[in-house]
Amino acid sequence: MKAAFYEGNKSIRLGECIAQEPKAGEVQLKVSHVGICGTDLHIYHGAMDKRVTFPQIMGHEMSGTVAAIGEGVSNVKVGDPVTVMPLDTTLCDASDPYKHIAKNMKFMGIDTPGAFQDFWTVPAFTLHKLPKSLSLKHGALLEPLAVACHDVRLAELKPGEDAVVLGGGPIGMLVALVARATGANVTLSEISPFRVDFAKSLGLDAINPKEKDIQAHLQEKTNGQGADVVFEVTGSAAGAQTMTTLPRIRGRLVVVGIAPTPHPVDLFQFFWKELVMKGARVYEDEDFEAAIKLADSGKLPLDKIITETKPLEEAKAAFERMEKGADVMKIVLEL
Amino acid sequence: MKAAFYEGNKSIRLGECIAQEPKAGEVQLKVSHVGICGTDLHIYHGAMDKRVTFPQIMGHEMSGTVAAIGEGVSNVKVGDPVTVMPLDTTLCDASDPYKHIAKNMKFMGIDTPGAFQDFWTVPAFTLHKLPKSLSLKHGALLEPLAVACHDVRLAELKPGEDAVVLGGGPIGMLVALVARATGANVTLSEISPFRVDFAKSLGLDAINPKEKDIQAHLQEKTNGQGADVVFEVTGSAAGAQTMTTLPRIRGRLVVVGIAPTPHPVDLFQFFWKELVMKGARVYEDEDFEAAIKLADSGKLPLDKIITETKPLEEAKAAFERMEKGADVMKIVLEL
Repeated sequence: MKAAFYEGNKSIRLGECIAQEPKAGEVQLKVSHVGICGTDLHIYHGAMDKRVTFPQIMGHEMSGTVAAIGEGVSNVKVGDPVTVMPLDTTLCDASDPYKHIAKNMKFMGIDTPGAFQDFWTVPAFTLHKLPKSLSLKHGALLEPLAVACHDVRLAELKPGEDAVVLGGGPIGMLVALVARATGANVTLSEISPFRVDFAKSLGLDAINPKEKDIQAHLQEKTNGQGADVVFEVTGSAAGAQTMTTLPRIRGRLVVVGIAPTPHPVDLFQFFWKELVMKGARVYEDEDFEAAIKLADSGKLPLDKIITETKPLEEAKAAFERMEKGADVMKIVLEL
Repeated sequence: MKAAFYEGNKSIRLGECIAQEPKAGEVQLKVSHVGICGTDLHIYHGAMDKRVTFPQIMGHEMSGTVAAIGEGVSNVKVGDPVTVMPLDTTLCDASDPYKHIAKNMKFMGIDTPGAFQDFWTVPAFTLHKLPKSLSLKHGALLEPLAVACHDVRLAELKPGEDAVVLGGGPIGMLVALVARATGANVTLSEISPFRVDFAKSLGLDAINPKEKDIQAHLQEKTNGQGADVVFEVTGSAAGAQTMTTLPRIRGRLVVVGIAPTPHPVDLFQFFWKELVMKGARVYEDEDFEAAIKLADSGKLPLDKIITETKPLEEAKAAFERMEKGADVMKIVLEL
């Protein structure tokens, strides 16, 4: 069988790989579709070389069908369509309520082999069954969609509230769509003209803060009250600066973007308006279930989110194009 | 009657003042004791000259007795010992749940005349009655104590949790004491040797981060888990840097200190540990009631918090000493 190996120094090599038989409590999946994540690109750039093992099989946004089950597995049967919540919490304290962000949690596809291979063997507890009505192609979007569901859930976003999303990459775009599906009035801020146009094509109120004052836009849109919720999905200094200028009194901020270094933050605004800020990382089981339900509802333009579907053989080319900042939202590899 | 007037340029003048008769809905108080707050010192420094009106009568941490009541006042009667929650919310939207931080809230003693005068006339709704068992001298501490009760309430601090207070001025010290009274294990971090020694004399685990690594101290104290709650009461860049290094996964931060400019904040830690940060400003009625109950319980070393009691005539000298960084916790003026 085939796999795509990251070998350091922006090298992705397609090669032969041995399928792992499922041990007790494990399930072997026939991989169908795998999305390429910003984190995969980050690995490709060499930014996580100290964390990954060479050669690293990346890929954690996937769908597939159960090919074989190990001893004692009862939650799925051969042939079931599934997706994986790629958090291996085997080594975590069983009583820990926050296993999804626990120290000993292994992120599959980063800390362990991922889904850029024909057959992927995973712990059975990581599986979420997919409804037959959901295509396996769309199934590859469930992992990033679960991130968005987690972010919106932690924000405690309610119908009718005003939400701002700073950053319109795949995660920001999905956060905006989940927020809209929740019934919020959404504004998306993004500096890439391609992404702004893309968001507009989805009917989102998208603005480019280089062209329009987002604070003034929000003030006007909310009768001077400010936003109920701001999602910071850029990780940038500009996002950290802007995020405190938008919320209303007691407004909520959710930190989704990964800031590489500390950025200046106007803590006075937290004091003055009693703002609340929460960090949000990955997801929990209920977020995957919410994502599956939402994807299956047909309410989200998932077809449009997937810009291209390519065979695994073109993984290298896909990474190269993404690195050059190609106008893509999500590239999905088909195995 | 006498009043102390701030006239700009670090000038405090004692002079004659006309007592205001209480109008409908108002109460005239015979002022007993008034504490000098860091905000008063800030005004004295000229930092709020654009906000105050000259000559400004400062003072908002007070106790007194009801001298006269205006038409329609039924919540107090002449002779009642009281304190004032100095938030004039007359101009706020009646349905606003957050009147205490609303745009049109007037802070009494800053935006309107304060309590550095023999008789102070205030809206009746700002009054909280004091139990006879509580001295009027201690009554002057209720306002800062209500700040601390608000901070601890927003932190949702529970008995047995580990709390860190960054900054051991009067507010930080009271936050530490309220946190301890709540049943938390408290660590206080403070760079002033006087304040560290003072905190130790109250039985608090106080450390000077210039002498001891506070992160290592917390790790040891919490078996490597980190703090449940961190109160940032310094407003400093060092506090903003330290605050994200101390909490456990899903730990809570409360921003109490007033940061004059944006400070670098490690947003990655918010993401990675799903930290929650809340700003906390002033108080609400329930915090005053909690403060009165706690002060009256005798559980807090309020006598020790009050370093000196001076007549109003010595207000100018008290401000001058505080400005020079004298080793005082709280100076209370007696009228």
